[in-house]
Formats: sequence, structure tokens, C-alpha cells
Amino acid sequence: MRVGVLTGGGDCPGLNAVIRAVVRKGVKEFGDEFVGFRDGWKGPLEGLTMELGVDQVRGILPRGGTILGSSRTNPFAVEGGVEQIKANLASAGVDALVAIGGEDTLGVATKLHDLGVNVVGVPKTIDNDLSGTDFTFGFDTAVNIASEAIDRLHTTAESHHRVLVVEVMGRHAGWIALHSGIAGGANVVLIPERPFDIEQVCAFVEQRFESKYAVIMVVSEGAVPADGTGMTLVSGEKDAFGHVRLGGIGERLASEIEARTGKEARAVVLGHIQRGGTPTAFDRWLATRFGLQAIGAVHDGDFGTMMALRGTDIVRVPLAEGTKELKLVSPEEYAEAEVFFG
Amino acid sequence: MRVGVLTGGGDCPGLNAVIRAVVRKGVKEFGDEFVGFRDGWKGPLEGLTMELGVDQVRGILPRGGTILGSSRTNPFAVEGGVEQIKANLASAGVDALVAIGGEDTLGVATKLHDLGVNVVGVPKTIDNDLSGTDFTFGFDTAVNIASEAIDRLHTTAESHHRVLVVEVMGRHAGWIALHSGIAGGANVVLIPERPFDIEQVCAFVEQRFESKYAVIMVVSEGAVPADGTGMTLVSGEKDAFGHVRLGGIGERLASEIEARTGKEARAVVLGHIQRGGTPTAFDRWLATRFGLQAIGAVHDGDFGTMMALRGTDIVRVPLAEGTKELKLVSPEEYAEAEVFFG
Amino acid sequence: MRVGVLTGGGDCPGLNAVIRAVVRKGVKEFGDEFVGFRDGWKGPLEGLTMELGVDQVRGILPRGGTILGSSRTNPFAVEGGVEQIKANLASAGVDALVAIGGEDTLGVATKLHDLGVNVVGVPKTIDNDLSGTDFTFGFDTAVNIASEAIDRLHTTAESHHRVLVVEVMGRHAGWIALHSGIAGGANVVLIPERPFDIEQVCAFVEQRFESKYAVIMVVSEGAVPADGTGMTLVSGEKDAFGHVRLGGIGERLASEIEARTGKEARAVVLGHIQRGGTPTAFDRWLATRFGLQAIGAVHDGDFGTMMALRGTDIVRVPLAEGTKELKLVSPEEYAEAEVFFG
Amino acid sequence: MRVGVLTGGGDCPGLNAVIRAVVRKGVKEFGDEFVGFRDGWKGPLEGLTMELGVDQVRGILPRGGTILGSSRTNPFAVEGGVEQIKANLASAGVDALVAIGGEDTLGVATKLHDLGVNVVGVPKTIDNDLSGTDFTFGFDTAVNIASEAIDRLHTTAESHHRVLVVEVMGRHAGWIALHSGIAGGANVVLIPERPFDIEQVCAFVEQRFESKYAVIMVVSEGAVPADGTGMTLVSGEKDAFGHVRLGGIGERLASEIEARTGKEARAVVLGHIQRGGTPTAFDRWLATRFGLQAIGAVHDGDFGTMMALRGTDIVRVPLAEGTKELKLVSPEEYAEAEVFFG
Repeated sequence: MRVGVLTGGGDCPGLNAVIRAVVRKGVKEFGDEFVGFRDGWKGPLEGLTMELGVDQVRGILPRGGTILGSSRTNPFAVEGGVEQIKANLASAGVDALVAIGGEDTLGVATKLHDLGVNVVGVPKTIDNDLSGTDFTFGFDTAVNIASEAIDRLHTTAESHHRVLVVEVMGRHAGWIALHSGIAGGANVVLIPERPFDIEQVCAFVEQRFESKYAVIMVVSEGAVPADGTGMTLVSGEKDAFGHVRLGGIGERLASEIEARTGKEARAVVLGHIQRGGTPTAFDRWLATRFGLQAIGAVHDGDFGTMMALRGTDIVRVPLAEGTKELKLVSPEEYAEAEVFFG
Repeated sequence: MRVGVLTGGGDCPGLNAVIRAVVRKGVKEFGDEFVGFRDGWKGPLEGLTMELGVDQVRGILPRGGTILGSSRTNPFAVEGGVEQIKANLASAGVDALVAIGGEDTLGVATKLHDLGVNVVGVPKTIDNDLSGTDFTFGFDTAVNIASEAIDRLHTTAESHHRVLVVEVMGRHAGWIALHSGIAGGANVVLIPERPFDIEQVCAFVEQRFESKYAVIMVVSEGAVPADGTGMTLVSGEKDAFGHVRLGGIGERLASEIEARTGKEARAVVLGHIQRGGTPTAFDRWLATRFGLQAIGAVHDGDFGTMMALRGTDIVRVPLAEGTKELKLVSPEEYAEAEVFFG
Repeated sequence: MRVGVLTGGGDCPGLNAVIRAVVRKGVKEFGDEFVGFRDGWKGPLEGLTMELGVDQVRGILPRGGTILGSSRTNPFAVEGGVEQIKANLASAGVDALVAIGGEDTLGVATKLHDLGVNVVGVPKTIDNDLSGTDFTFGFDTAVNIASEAIDRLHTTAESHHRVLVVEVMGRHAGWIALHSGIAGGANVVLIPERPFDIEQVCAFVEQRFESKYAVIMVVSEGAVPADGTGMTLVSGEKDAFGHVRLGGIGERLASEIEARTGKEARAVVLGHIQRGGTPTAFDRWLATRFGLQAIGAVHDGDFGTMMALRGTDIVRVPLAEGTKELKLVSPEEYAEAEVFFG
Repeated sequence: MRVGVLTGGGDCPGLNAVIRAVVRKGVKEFGDEFVGFRDGWKGPLEGLTMELGVDQVRGILPRGGTILGSSRTNPFAVEGGVEQIKANLASAGVDALVAIGGEDTLGVATKLHDLGVNVVGVPKTIDNDLSGTDFTFGFDTAVNIASEAIDRLHTTAESHHRVLVVEVMGRHAGWIALHSGIAGGANVVLIPERPFDIEQVCAFVEQRFESKYAVIMVVSEGAVPADGTGMTLVSGEKDAFGHVRLGGIGERLASEIEARTGKEARAVVLGHIQRGGTPTAFDRWLATRFGLQAIGAVHDGDFGTMMALRGTDIVRVPLAEGTKELKLVSPEEYAEAEVFFG
């Protein structure tokens, strides 16, 4: 068979491991040929291809990023996009497509499958907020980076009296904050699923300082203050250039806590270092197995499916089901961790 | 309640995280008191205790080893051992016991539970060979250390023509070798479950060198040559001091391959660095959740159970079931990875 | 002899290694007794002491922070401070003092020495801006952490079109930015010694994007825009609570570049993770040797000196000389690195 | 100018950083063209070249190994070798050569320079045993890897009663063992410069176990027992295949200590993981600056020189002087560290 591969959406450690596994198994077990489509859906939309074979995937297993490039292009937002894709797949002689990406990328995959394109999906989100799978690759790497950062802050916290706020990724779901907060032994974890009350946060800070300890606070980038609790992230706030102020929740919180409690507060903003660089062993193993299963699904004609981890098994679930809702931190899961806060 | 805690068997990253979680939740949610028993079953056997409370578990989350010490003492091998344990538990006022350990430690726990002791178990093995749970803590740390070592060898392999043999832990099961071999992109993985043929191994080495690449080989410490395949690990072989030669399979293999193929071969023996030091985030998270569940089981009176990971849930399974057989790498699981070997 | 030890100023990986070396050598070679003074100069000022011997320094070599605690207390700002210190040293029976700290701490040491106190100094600054020594401990750790962060950003930079701004420590001197920028392969390095022109920075960004690459920019926390170049860090700017806005230069720059060029720009703020946690081998070696030399200086009666690295030798220089001026990045050193920018 | 570049001898983190710096500065500041010679002196000997320009050095800074390949080929051992090299340099239009390598590679460079070839040298040895320079790149990386391994062993040592022997690189000089032993807090360090007495080593082990601690021992691969001290590494000892036994000193020592003291002893053999993989920030900085200085030396016509670190300066020293003798650990340097042993 002739199989196309593409990666879409944000960077995520493990993308190259998926590509490599798809190609290595495809070539060795099935004698497949591969076409790399560049820059997500932009590739099949505009006919941007690159050679993809055993030589191209040599040495990429430990590398972050994606050799195929990525984009957030949505072909359904382009007039005649679907037809262009079909035409380009046909002219590239592609029988099936492996699409690796998050909600958006797989959403397009789902619709294209409904329109007759042979596509299988591999889920990708470092936020780990896809409902169809126990874990997604990239998440373990992000959590380890955040945990190591928190580890380093503990010694400062022991030697000085400070509030240290660590901003981690997680726009809608608090998984990275929760797991790294547990693993790092944080004192407070603020997540998008539970809007926080700045007064409670500050009361906690002051109470904790009574017993002379510092405070390590992990906050998801998407955490927000609850309405009417005295702190707002005014969406229309603008800077000198008329641009909406970008300062993240981490720096904002540090500033606000310092203003309210008089305690020195500092922010660490991990940003993109959570999603770049070499994947952990877990993420390489998971990504590799997703890739092996995906090319298997292609040869089984099991199109319209998405690979998923269930326990230690890789299974196939319908694309539509896998992406239909975000997996959020439940109140029970948060409560389980709460015993360590304080 | 008054709860005893002990850790038995070999070192494993995450032991302290379990202890901390048991104590933190026990104190905060149930008002428990704790007694630390020192050095595994030796503690309750000989009445060796240490103070164990919130102060003792502060800061231990990222630390390897165990603050309680460990041993391989088996009270059933001691005359009157069970009675001594019961007496010591009674005199320490202990209502229940949390035993953290591997096959041996939990085997004792199972028997003691049958004899009326209130015990819950937390499984521990870096080898990941316990059948009752998806993963055990410590394993992820070991795999990451091995994978990072393999990563480093690739650049040497690219610049020189060498056979590099990495010996990893795994006496009966090849999980560490298999996972780190997949994650590190090894060319050969030898595991205890599949006795190897040294002639095939050497034939592979020679064939691979024809296309000018080096060879990275991962071998479990428990891997053995198949009978009648021209290599033996003579059990009676002795050194100058009359002691059985200890040289591990890694050094043996390197020596043998060099002798047979004439290619320079070198061994890396990771040994105890795989089981010491700080746990990964995954292992801290898993160990912490095992601890939380264990103290919950104590308060539910759910004795005779062992904590287990199933997907992302921590469940309780009967101790006897959890430890009844080793979880080995199946032929299918090995075959899945084999696509990358060569 | 009876020797006091204190640590002052900000956190710095290697402090514990110095303390350990002083104590281990003092006890073993000279039979010294030690008194730990807590929280920098606050300790001798207020008579805050702690036991300090071989037991207290066991296991602290790899730990960040300082077991003695720290503060920025200046006894010369306290009425009668010097007399109190002399009285407290006398009542603790202390013959000499080893003071470990930066500019401020050693400045106090210098003055106290002039007033007759037997003191030797060990320099400490992660910023590496002390003129008397080739390197200070802590710096190598900070540079490694920053370099690893930059490494991780490269893969994102290769997969996406972004400006990534990494804010590193360095209030007055750009050493961390310069070394990590060189080691990480940054495209731009902005340091306090060279106020930057935001228009030039943006012009560079736009030019670089013409050839389709992303931009990785390392900026010292103390970097400032040059006067009259269209960007100001208004010192009086206040937030909703009347507090001066704290947002660091990293977030500011990202925001400004995005506003001016329309390119997506994101900040990473490493903050305190650069100064916490375990020291690198180099920093442990340097800190240890500083400690060995310091206790040697005490026994040689070589008071008023500061330990310094010159090549691979540890030498003693007059305290006053070692701290008299900041070591800044020279135009030549910046120019040497500039070949890589762009 | 047209400049050739080659790398010889064993793998060493930082080789690619040198190559990149030479090329980047050569192209940008001098408009140079480059020729890459493959596989050390084999390249100019056999006329094996590769393209070498800004594109070829992109992204190689963090990579271990060398994009030019390496070998131990000695053109002076080949009949007519020097003439061939001169002819191949001429036909490649090469005006000067930058040779990066250790004692052997630079020894060839020295002789060729004497015979009229325009060559400058960059020293390379992870063993750090070159006398002309404070440090060589690669050494800091090796020491960090060894120190991290020792760190991990401490927790096992605390939980169990074991002798843990870590074998590190260092065939003639004990620098890696000494620095990592200091940085890791080892109890014993055995180096080639001081043949050890096995009975003393065992006596120490037994004495240390009296106070219940484990023993962490770092041993250079080139450490040897002193004559007449009851342990020999019989050079003629052969295995079943008639090959001289390869088992390293690490495994031998562990075996011998276990046999003599009855204490469980285990070996860790770090081997090639010390010389592969990504360089530390220090090594990247040093290697980069060596490269910058080397291309500067070429343009100054400063041939027959070798780059060297003195303090924080990169200087040029005569090739002959830089390589004339090995830099060994002096008795004083060993004694300085000895305060921590025990």
C-alpha cells in the first residue's frame, strides 16, 4: 500500500516516534510505501509532500518536534478544501492516511473519513485531555519537566521565605498541574476546572507562613479566578501598543499575592520547554506502540478509528468517540490529591 | 487507628512516596497514629520500631531508598516467628499493618493475613513482573535510566564501529530490557523469557556490520544462552579464590562476541543505578496513589488486599491473586517490538 | 579551634558542599569544633546557632539550599550590630568565622575583619559577577539548566514559526545569558551590559522569519532597552492594586515583539529553578575545594581573605580586592559570541 | 581560505561544537570555504572528503559524536603516507588544516607541521590528561554522568549493606574518578597513578561496615593492584575461547572484595555512556571557544599551535609542548580529596 502520514497542531514529544513506528513496520511487515505530507492538513491541501522511508526516520526516535512539520490549517475552512485534498491524495497515489494530532486535527480526520477518505488517527495532546485513551504521549514528558522544576524550587523554599508560582501548560484541563503538583509535592494546585478564589489563596499563604514555610504553587495556564472573588483577568486589558496584555496567570498571580500579602512572590513560567525536546521513555514507548497499531489498522481496513491506551493495551476506538469530549480532572481526582495541599 | 508500616526487599524508587502518602492521609483524614517498623519483616519480628509521623515524611517524596530501611528477613523461616510478630504488633498497639514489598514480602503478608493479622499490601518491584497490576512503581525510573544510557551510546555507535552491550536489571522478566530497548532504539534485545542462541546473535552482528553500522544490544541480567547453542554460563566456574565467577552476562556477552566475530565489543553494566535515586514523576504519582489507597483499605477493613493499577484507577485485589504468578513478556509482546530489531 | 560558619544572600547550588568540606576537613585534620550560625549575619547578630558537625553535614553534598538558612540581614544597618556580633562570637567561644556569600555578605565580612574579627570569605553568586575569581559555584548549574531549556525549545522552533524568549538570571551581568546562549545555540542574547534597541531586535526577527526560521532569544532579567529606542520599562507603572507591575523583561519582550511584528512570541521564565536543586559536578568540586581552602586559611591565620579559582588552583585573595568591582561581560567577550547570533 | 577539518581518536562530547564554531566563524568573518575530511587522518590519507558548510553544521551543537567520523589511522605507519596526505590536501585545494583529537591525532599533526603542512590543533580527551590546558572538553560531561550515577547509588547504600563499585574511564589518569568521587561523595577512589593494595581496600571495607554503612568505591578503568599485594590482573588469563579475559577492573574488584570480606559487592560499569551523548554547557562553551580560536589561528598563520584553556582565556601553545607529557593526578591533589574518603 501507499500510505500518507501527517502531523498537526502543537508540538509534542513523541511525534517522531509515531512516524518512525508507522514507517518501520509498514516497510518491514507489509512492504508499504510512504508519502510524508508537510505541515499538517496544509500538506494534503496544497500537495506539499516529502520523501518518507526508512532512511528519513533513522535517528528520529529521541528527537522532539516532527520531521513532517505541523500547522493548524483547517481544510474545512477553505473553499473546496475537501476536493483539493481528495485530488492531492489521488495524485500522490495514496491509499490511506495516518493523521497524528489533537482535537482539531482528528476532528478534520473524522469528517474526511465520513466523506470517504481512508484515514486512521493517532491522538496527540500534551494536556492529556482526550477522553478516549488512558494517556496521550507527550504528557509524561511535560509532567517530568514540571516536576523537576518543582524539585529545584523546594531547596529555595527551604532556605528563603517565598511564594513560588509555577505556571504549567493546560488550557482547559489541569492534568499537568495535578500530576506534577503531586509528584513535586506542591502546596497548592490551581486548575482550570476549579476557578480559584484569590482571597482563599492569600489566606492560605498567610496561614502557611505562620509556621515559617514557603509556598510552592502550581497553576495551569488556563486557571482562572472565580467570578466575584476580587481578581479578574480583564480580557480587554491592553498594553501601550493596543495589544491585549499577554502576561500569563503565573506572573499575575505572583504579583497579586505579593500585593495582597506583602510576601515576596516569584513566578516560573515553563512554557514551551514542556513540549519540546526529547520524550521520556514512557512517551516513546506509547508513541511507538500507537504507530505500530495505526499501520496495523490501515492494513486491517479499520478506517475511522483512533488508537488508544487502555491499561497496557493499545486498542482502536471510533475517531468520533475518542474526540467527542474533553477529559477533565474530576472533583474526586482533585480531592484525592488535596490531602497533600497545605 | 494505630497503623504499622514496613518496607521489604530490594531498593526501589518510590518507596518513600508510598510511606509519605500513607502517613499524610492517615493523619489528616483519619487522625491515625503510625509506627514505623525497621528493615522489613525484621522490624515486627524483633520489635524494631521508629517514630513515623508527618515530620518524618517531610521532604522524602523525591528521595530514593526507604526511610524505614529494608531486609529480606522471612519470619516463617524463624522458629516461633509468627508468634513474635503477633506479640510485637500487640505490644506496639498496632491495629493494622501496611506492608510494601515484592513477591517475598507480600508472600509473608499473605500468610500472616491468613493467620489473622490485619495487613494490606503495596506491590513493589522495579522488574514490573507482578501479575496483579498494570505497572509497579520504580519500573518507569529504571526504564528511563536505561533509555538515557542507550541514547548516549548511539552517538558513539554512529562514530565508531563497535558492539555495545547494555546489561539492565530483570532476573526473571525482560520488561526493563524490552521497554528501554524500544525507547532507546536498540538493535537487539535479549530477555530471560527467550534463551538466546549465541551463533544467531553473532551472525546478526556480522550481517549488520556489512552495512557499516554499529550494534547496540540490551540484555537482561537474567538472560541465558539456550542449551546446546555453544555458550554456557558454567555455574560451577570458579575464580582464584574458589568463588563462583560473578562476571555478569553483559561482560560475558561482550567478551564472547568479540572472540567470535573479531569486532570490538564493550559492556555497560547499569546495575544499582537503575534502582537508586529519585523516582520519575510517573513513579511518584503511582507510589503516592498506592499509598493513599492502602490507608483507605485499612480503614475499610479491606485486609488481605494488594493495591493495583488498572488503567488509571487504583484498585484492590486479593494479595494471593496479585502475587500468584510472575508476569512475563509474552511472545506476542516481544514480536511487536521485533520489527525494530536489526 | 572553634569555628563559626554562616551563609548569606540568595540561594545557590553548592552552599552545602562548602559547609561540608569546611567541617569534614576541620574535624579530620585539625580536630576543630564548629558552630553553625543561622540565617546569614542574623545568626551572629542575634546569637542564633545550630549544632554543626560531621553528622549534620552527612548527605548534604548533593542538596541545594543551605542547611544553615540564609538572610540579607546587614549588621551595620543595626544600631550596635557590630558589638552584638562580637559579643555573640565571644559567648559562643568562636575563634574564627567562615562567611559564605555574595557581594553584600562579603562586604560585611570585609568590614568586620577591619574591626578585628577573624573572618575568611567564600564567594557565592550564581551570576558569576565577582571579579576576584575565574568562576563562582552555582553558575555552572544555572547555565546548564538554562541550556537544557534552550535545547528543548529548538525542536519547537523547528516545527513552528515562533519567537521564544527565555528569561534567565543576571541582574547586572549577562554571564548566564551569554554562556547558555552560546551553549544552547540561541539566535539573540540580550544582556544588561548592552541596552538593546527594540527596533533592531524586531528588525532581526522579521529578517530571520524571511528565511523561515524561528527565533530563540535569551535575555538576562536585568537587560534593559536603550534610552530613546521606543520601549520603556516604566518604573512607576502600576497595576490594579496600586503595586508596581512586576512582569519580567521576558514576558514584556514577548508581548512587545508580538505587538510590533505580528509574529507569535512566547516567554519562558526560568526564575528560581536556576538557583535551586542539586549542583552540577563542577559546582560541587569548586564549592568543595573552596571549603577545603577556607578552613586551611583559618588555620594559617590568613584572615581577611577570600577563596578564588585561578585556572585549576584555589588561591586566597584579599576580601576587599575580590569584591571591589563587578565582573561584567566585556564588549570583546560579547563580540566573540556574536558570530553565532542571527 | 580553503580550510580542511578532521576529527580523530575516540568519541568525545563537544567534537561537533568545535566543528560548528570553526565553520560558522570562518564563513561569517573570513569568507572561508571548508572541506570535511572523513574518519580522522584516514580522510586526508585516502582523499575521503565531505561537504562542510553552514548547512552541514546546523543543529549539531548539542549532538555527541562527530559528523566527520573518526578513526585511529596513523599516516606515519603507512608507506608514503605523508606524501599522499600532501597530495590530497593539494588536490582538495586546502590551504590549512584544523585537526581535532587527542595525543595520537595531535602527535601526527605535530609531525606534519614539521614537514611543512599548515595545521592547527584542538585538543580532545575526555580523560583530561593533556598537560597544555586546564581542561579539555568532554571531561565535564563524563564527570557529570559519573557523579549522577554515584548520587543514585547513595540511596541504595543507605537502605542496604553493600559494596558498590563504579568503574569510570581513565586509562592512565584518574581525573574522572577523582572529580566524580569528590562530586559524588564516594568513600574510596582508586586511580591508575596509585596502585592499590587489595588488603587495605578490604580492611577499609570491613572497618566501615562496623559502623553499619555501605561503601561506594569509584575506580578508574586503568587502576591496578600494586605488585605483591595479593591481587593480580593476570595478563595471560584466557577464557573458553582462548581469548584473554576482558572483565574490567570494576567487576574484578567487586568479585574480589566479596570473596575476601563476605560482603555483597556489585559493580556498575559506565563505559561508553560517559563519552556519548549531548555535552554539558561547560563542554559546549569550551569546545566552541576552542573552535573560534582555532580558525583565528589559521588566519593569523599561527600554525603548529594547539588551543588551550588557561583560566577563562583560550590561548595558543605549541603543539609539541601541549602534548609532550600526560597530566596525571599529583599526590597533593589526591591527598586534598582524601579527607573525604572513609
